[in-house]
Amino acid sequence: MSEVYAARRARLRDRAQAGGSQSALVTNPANVRYLAGPAPQGTVLLLGKRDDTLVCTDPLDERPPEGRPDEALRIQTLPGPGGDPAVAAADLAAAHGAESMAVEEHHLTVTRHRALRSVAPTLRLTDIGGAVEQLRVVKDEEEISCLRIAAEIADQALGELLESILVGRTERHLALELERRLVDHGAEGPAFATSVATGPHSGRRGHRPTDRRVEEGDFLSVCLGATYRGYRCEIGRTFVIGTSPADWQIELYDLVFAAQRAARESLSPGAAYRDVDRAARQVLDSAGYSEGLAALTGHGVGLEIDEEPQLAPAAMGKLDACVPVTVEPGVHLPGRGGVRIDDTLVVRPEADGGPELLTITTKELLAL
Amino acid sequence: MSEVYAARRARLRDRAQAGGSQSALVTNPANVRYLAGPAPQGTVLLLGKRDDTLVCTDPLDERPPEGRPDEALRIQTLPGPGGDPAVAAADLAAAHGAESMAVEEHHLTVTRHRALRSVAPTLRLTDIGGAVEQLRVVKDEEEISCLRIAAEIADQALGELLESILVGRTERHLALELERRLVDHGAEGPAFATSVATGPHSGRRGHRPTDRRVEEGDFLSVCLGATYRGYRCEIGRTFVIGTSPADWQIELYDLVFAAQRAARESLSPGAAYRDVDRAARQVLDSAGYSEGLAALTGHGVGLEIDEEPQLAPAAMGKLDACVPVTVEPGVHLPGRGGVRIDDTLVVRPEADGGPELLTITTKELLAL
Repeated sequence: MSEVYAARRARLRDRAQAGGSQSALVTNPANVRYLAGPAPQGTVLLLGKRDDTLVCTDPLDERPPEGRPDEALRIQTLPGPGGDPAVAAADLAAAHGAESMAVEEHHLTVTRHRALRSVAPTLRLTDIGGAVEQLRVVKDEEEISCLRIAAEIADQALGELLESILVGRTERHLALELERRLVDHGAEGPAFATSVATGPHSGRRGHRPTDRRVEEGDFLSVCLGATYRGYRCEIGRTFVIGTSPADWQIELYDLVFAAQRAARESLSPGAAYRDVDRAARQVLDSAGYSEGLAALTGHGVGLEIDEEPQLAPAAMGKLDACVPVTVEPGVHLPGRGGVRIDDTLVVRPEADGGPELLTITTKELLAL
Repeated sequence: MSEVYAARRARLRDRAQAGGSQSALVTNPANVRYLAGPAPQGTVLLLGKRDDTLVCTDPLDERPPEGRPDEALRIQTLPGPGGDPAVAAADLAAAHGAESMAVEEHHLTVTRHRALRSVAPTLRLTDIGGAVEQLRVVKDEEEISCLRIAAEIADQALGELLESILVGRTERHLALELERRLVDHGAEGPAFATSVATGPHSGRRGHRPTDRRVEEGDFLSVCLGATYRGYRCEIGRTFVIGTSPADWQIELYDLVFAAQRAARESLSPGAAYRDVDRAARQVLDSAGYSEGLAALTGHGVGLEIDEEPQLAPAAMGKLDACVPVTVEPGVHLPGRGGVRIDDTLVVRPEADGGPELLTITTKELLAL
């Protein structure tokens, strides 16, 4: 792995130097992880002129169970506890004679940025913006295989839930049950707070589980994901509880399914983000559901569950091969409930068989 | 409750106006919750000259299951999805003729702060610092009763775990089991990521559970907390697995227990934060464990699990009555493990019986 991390840091160093900065400070934890490997919470990465340094808080802090940072890095621990590694890193950069340092202004707070300036007044701070986030968009096959395993784990956890009795159980308990199963199957943990939505809650994006119990005739929508070696996937399905779905449920399900399929089929290298969004949105629009749709149809996944790109109406940019994204349109009817269907796929060229579906749980409307 | 929220906002408005700002923007979610009640994720609070406004993201966003915001507030939803409520609030403040607005520079990123400036260039932005965090330090009896219930829930979850078979189970599974029990007993969820540390991991603050299994002769240290109506408590205990603890385990346990008791007994209105820390630290120092101790002996709890005050060597300030804090000294011996004992208590005057212990699980060294 060490060469992989070194290559990633070399690309960032080029970006920083092209922007006129001799050093760069990475503070966003997912970005530190991408460039340096697993590191204790709060660790920051300083890219210097010559060598790179991880600055950690006091050694008693938690270490990530999933591994160790890149051995090629110099590791420095804060002398005093309770300090800010970013401030120590700025101090270090100035001490090594750097005149400028690129920082992540979208991650640093105003107060923290001021602390950097005051500890190293001679150091000119520039903004590296989302440079690391941009590097992270296209995944290598190693990263994709982690996502593939994460998706398998989520499929397994969801599949087991479907075999259990659901009526009478609360959203909260079903969510916890799913998270336990994710870990049973080897996840480091859930990729995000598992969402279980019943009846009138169903179909709502990011619904936080309540004490409402599953009832006969409910729509049940579930959204979960596993984290495996830091990589996060997402799957969402909607089911109906009881013997036979109502007509409105079947119609709504078929509509959302059609919208989701349209967006999946539009995934290809070179496709504009907004066109993937439009593919799903116009199916829902044409059926009169233009109001109150979610802001986006999907988003990138990787070391964070919601990363670049955004598949949204105003998004600029085009998909590349090896970009994993979610496709998750939904419709929610206030007071009645709704449907969401959510897959994680990897964009692949037609020659390689088109988009690779990572979350393979059936998308038929199951009556449980 | 509405009067309570109104009174809190009035105090903040006074602080802002004393600082020369006619309006204030609150973005830190715990602060928004304190001043406005439960609100959807991403919601910000604008304190205007006359009336106060909650600015929310698109209505499809998650709503908190635990309640609704203060009805006295005007609620404004972003026109377009995906926007930043803070930017909309700055726009609104300027439109209402405000010339200055106090913001939380310790919470706003540099990028977000710049976006506020560019949407409302005539609006002078000042820093309100940790004003709301300071208001939150002393709790009212309503808040304390929520913490009391949260602590009861955590005690129950921990008590049930102690009755189950532990040997052979992994840290990860025990942590998930505890979190399920928290919800069983009425918690909204865990107050923080439950920490279960076995053998060589035991006694480490903030240890993230791994796949290590509990073994005979291990120290097992557990730290968990419940969230009830938004309020978060914390309890930590260390046990020994098997029939009889080794001598070194008994000695280390007695030492940490003595340190924790010394700090608990030093809790009183007017006591300096650093003196509470020193009470525990000098017990450990005198036994030769000055190296590698955690940065703090305890911290405030409330709407956040780690809030003001910090009970640490360099902390400035004195305790007041009705301030809930943790007391959580620990010793970790690399490669061998260690002990942590953690309680949540409320500072009370001697006349009222002294500190109120919220987490009542026994602190005897139990052999499980």
